[in-house]
Amino acid sequence: MNETFRPTLNDVARAAGVSTATVSRCLNEPDRVVPATRERVMRAVKDLGYTPDFGGRALASRRTKTVGAVIPTMENAIFARGLQAFQETLSEAGVTLLVAGSGYDSEREAEQVRALVGRGADGLLLIGLARPQATYDYLRQRGTPYVLAWNLGDTSDHFIGFDNLRAAAEIASKVIELGHRDIAMIAGVTSMNDRAADRVEGVRSAMRRAISEVKSFDVIEAPYTFEDGATAFDRLVRRTPRPTAVICGNDVLAVGAISRAKALGLGVPGDISITGFDDIDIASFVEPALTTVHVPHRRMGSAAAQVLLRLIANEPVEPRVEIGVEIVMRGSLGPPPGTTP
Amino acid sequence: MNETFRPTLNDVARAAGVSTATVSRCLNEPDRVVPATRERVMRAVKDLGYTPDFGGRALASRRTKTVGAVIPTMENAIFARGLQAFQETLSEAGVTLLVAGSGYDSEREAEQVRALVGRGADGLLLIGLARPQATYDYLRQRGTPYVLAWNLGDTSDHFIGFDNLRAAAEIASKVIELGHRDIAMIAGVTSMNDRAADRVEGVRSAMRRAISEVKSFDVIEAPYTFEDGATAFDRLVRRTPRPTAVICGNDVLAVGAISRAKALGLGVPGDISITGFDDIDIASFVEPALTTVHVPHRRMGSAAAQVLLRLIANEPVEPRVEIGVEIVMRGSLGPPPGTTP
Repeated sequence: MNETFRPTLNDVARAAGVSTATVSRCLNEPDRVVPATRERVMRAVKDLGYTPDFGGRALASRRTKTVGAVIPTMENAIFARGLQAFQETLSEAGVTLLVAGSGYDSEREAEQVRALVGRGADGLLLIGLARPQATYDYLRQRGTPYVLAWNLGDTSDHFIGFDNLRAAAEIASKVIELGHRDIAMIAGVTSMNDRAADRVEGVRSAMRRAISEVKSFDVIEAPYTFEDGATAFDRLVRRTPRPTAVICGNDVLAVGAISRAKALGLGVPGDISITGFDDIDIASFVEPALTTVHVPHRRMGSAAAQVLLRLIANEPVEPRVEIGVEIVMRGSLGPPPGTTP
Repeated sequence: MNETFRPTLNDVARAAGVSTATVSRCLNEPDRVVPATRERVMRAVKDLGYTPDFGGRALASRRTKTVGAVIPTMENAIFARGLQAFQETLSEAGVTLLVAGSGYDSEREAEQVRALVGRGADGLLLIGLARPQATYDYLRQRGTPYVLAWNLGDTSDHFIGFDNLRAAAEIASKVIELGHRDIAMIAGVTSMNDRAADRVEGVRSAMRRAISEVKSFDVIEAPYTFEDGATAFDRLVRRTPRPTAVICGNDVLAVGAISRAKALGLGVPGDISITGFDDIDIASFVEPALTTVHVPHRRMGSAAAQVLLRLIANEPVEPRVEIGVEIVMRGSLGPPPGTTP
């Protein structure tokens, strides 16, 4: 890079008529700067094509050997498992992981991203892709490498994930192929959750493809607990026509649904079939064991760490790592009642 | 405090014959200082009664509004739930939580404690009490407030926890009272885990108290997965005499054991009783539902946050907050086969 043509922090400060400290604050803690000043500074940053001087960060000695992750919730078996593998891979490289939970709140996620970058995180893991553009802008301005996991997008970001939509469409197609005509879905909450939204869209697309066969299709959303799955199941079975198959957006909802079905005296899958998504540990320990989409969470977490470490080291990386998922047929999905398979 | 009598960083440096930077490094990043120098400096610190000047930290403006937690593993529903509540309470106070996982390795825990304190954590949450004295010494030298959760100890630290030993003794006594005479325990791994060790000791103490009644008692340890619980159960039921009750050190092991019992054609509790500990979500969704020790994890996490926030603010706190636990009788524990309850 030709240093002569590279604008400095001083140039930005002069152009915006503020101190360098203010420019710095706009870049690092924009919330602490009044909007008018921030806008003036950010315009100067853009006009001059200024990028903060993170050249020094490329020197190993300047790295903090710390990586951050912001996950939607700490209280979720799915992230826990992938994150554990992410951490183990980082740990082998001598890198410490610090984790923050956003509570599925994109504003809080943005705060935590700034907190982690502000504490010197060399790179970040974020889940999925639905978040305000400002968060992406902040990371690019800071020059902080990041990877997005648990889904795949079509932006220029680095993804380590799988096609939630296609996998959900596949399991829904299996349900239709077995002869189910009245089908319902208990989805995760889709707001600011691209994974949950993609799964709903995948199931809907399978229903649309089989529009001449499927008689009824219903979707309700439920938060992520066994109890929520059970309650949602209660609502669905009271509908007319009663669904013969309930496709769940994740295994936790499915386990709750199975438990409630049995409590209501319904045989699974004799009276009603239930499917999950994720293949968390408990999926093979319930009765009947859950037909679900197996997601290799540990492999995904480990791959995310590898890509992030390479990004931090300025080494070439694949822009997109697709993690293969597959449907695992277990006991909870069968043909609808009254049919001969 | 009379500042005149307070030794400074300079005094320590002079006494140890090193630079103030070296003293600082000994206090903050002891691993980066050669042992001989470190010992000399730490002796001077001790001789002079030096404590780092964290007076400035008491000013709100100097605080980072970040708290750290080091938990044994990210892959564990029990910590996840308590931690989520811990975070929510911090979040209400505008404090960000950063979490690190130690993999049940006390050396790694020590590194992560230093990483978090080094990144400016205002205070720390640690799990249990079994860790090298050096970690406690480091925290005291740094003047970083910390709380210990999930257990109670008798040191001068701040505990927010429950009596694992007494609770385990109580559930074991229930098993004996119901008439079981051949009893086994599947314990969590007790090495560097005071909670798991206390639960074993509690069960053993109940057995000792009923020594004239109990005919056989066996303990095996298993890691924290459903599959490990199932495998351990396999080993236990092949023993002679076959136990009529299996007390598990946690619910995950117990759910694995129930699943394997049913797969082997054993009725629970008709042929064999199984108990858990923790009352995680799945405990009431398995069949039969699990008799277990209910631990209010969310309450504990929230209380830990409240105590830590007060410690950081230099407000008075209770040295020990005992969280009440209770035995929840569900379907998995009954009298031994061949008895009339």
